[in-house]
Amino acid sequence: MENLTVGQYNLIYNAFSFSFATLAAATLFFWLGRSQVIAQYKTALTITGLVTFIAAYHYFRIGQSWSEAYEFVDGTIQATGVPFNDAYRYVDWLLTVPLLLIELILVMGLSRSETISRATRLGVLAALMVALGYPGEIATSNGARWMWGILSMIPFLWIIYELFVGLSKSISDQPENARSLVKTARNVTVLSWAFYPVVYFAGAVGLDGSTSQVVIQVGYTIADIIAKAGFGVLIFLIAVRKSDAKSDGSGSAVPAE
Amino acid sequence: MENLTVGQYNLIYNAFSFSFATLAAATLFFWLGRSQVIAQYKTALTITGLVTFIAAYHYFRIGQSWSEAYEFVDGTIQATGVPFNDAYRYVDWLLTVPLLLIELILVMGLSRSETISRATRLGVLAALMVALGYPGEIATSNGARWMWGILSMIPFLWIIYELFVGLSKSISDQPENARSLVKTARNVTVLSWAFYPVVYFAGAVGLDGSTSQVVIQVGYTIADIIAKAGFGVLIFLIAVRKSDAKSDGSGSAVPAE
Repeated sequence: MENLTVGQYNLIYNAFSFSFATLAAATLFFWLGRSQVIAQYKTALTITGLVTFIAAYHYFRIGQSWSEAYEFVDGTIQATGVPFNDAYRYVDWLLTVPLLLIELILVMGLSRSETISRATRLGVLAALMVALGYPGEIATSNGARWMWGILSMIPFLWIIYELFVGLSKSISDQPENARSLVKTARNVTVLSWAFYPVVYFAGAVGLDGSTSQVVIQVGYTIADIIAKAGFGVLIFLIAVRKSDAKSDGSGSAVPAE
Repeated sequence: MENLTVGQYNLIYNAFSFSFATLAAATLFFWLGRSQVIAQYKTALTITGLVTFIAAYHYFRIGQSWSEAYEFVDGTIQATGVPFNDAYRYVDWLLTVPLLLIELILVMGLSRSETISRATRLGVLAALMVALGYPGEIATSNGARWMWGILSMIPFLWIIYELFVGLSKSISDQPENARSLVKTARNVTVLSWAFYPVVYFAGAVGLDGSTSQVVIQVGYTIADIIAKAGFGVLIFLIAVRKSDAKSDGSGSAVPAE
């Protein structure tokens, strides 16, 4: 493995630890918040917490794998020969990315049949997107990285189409006090996800080894925090506001006006 | 790394363990307490517990890192060559310090718009304060420690201004049975936070290495316990009293008067 400086090693290590702490805290926030929404939206918050829980687990493992892959020798960082396990990320995404789309569909409170059809279609597309990206991530040649990366953009673009065209009517049917938040959540999904291909291809534009390692690891970490914890807070706020709109507000978790 | 005595090593190690136990216990206290307050204040207690949860995690890691950084050799303490990871503190503060201000704003029960604007401004200032402090903490020269320390005092002073001037009207509008507690919480925030720069600059006044190590590690630990667990207890009491004021008091967790 390329030679990292102590600073680069620590930056990546601390990014993993930061991400674990953030995602674990977010999980408890979402699950505790279930008591503040009406029954219809409890599953959305359960799944929102599952996404951050699964991601927290993987960041804990990623951090362990990172420590095992390197050691301090006379104040420098040396590879131990134990390979860093990149697959944790893809295993995580395979589980969490479909769930992220499903939590958005659930919090929109669509009819049962529309919920099932949209959640299924988006979930399958998301899993396909992740599965197609992995061969490129572990590919040794940049050509393969580009090919698989471009293949996985196809389901990604289809997802964007579904979110902007397929869901547009359902979004405009949202209660007034939640509509703009649902739009924001939809946009945060697309914007934060758009960051992944940037990081992915950063590994293919020929940065030197250790620099691209920093860009890829820190980049994915920031994207995961925004796409899972940040997005989840929006889902929580939507669930709370829609609960207020449907109840007398006694379930409110936000300050009275 | 400077040579610590066995006594100094143990004092710091036990301070870390004490802090973990205190913060973990505080977390459970705040979350269990959610059931004793009305819906409006549940999020404040959720976040109060998140702060101590995140801090407990970091003290656990700090303790591990401390053990890995030193070893006992013939009854003396020797550095192992694995550097002690100071960054855990700053990673922790980056998450918890904004949340501490947000829990104070939430428990005040302001209007939604005022809550969002004040929480955002205070949160950003707090993150900025922490981010500006870190380069000085890891700096090798005292000059750099002073420069970054002074820079991070700017957002700190702005926060004090916001708390004492910006919030003064909102505080005087608090229900009579909670007003003095809210004032106390505000003051505890400023007083406990004022302790951090003292510790920070203690590292820059040329104490010898091991003494300043003890002052910095034990000092930050005491400050964290007061600012997170102690402050949190005040937030809990405020939430309980304001819940009593709004309900028939059946949710009361304080002894009848």
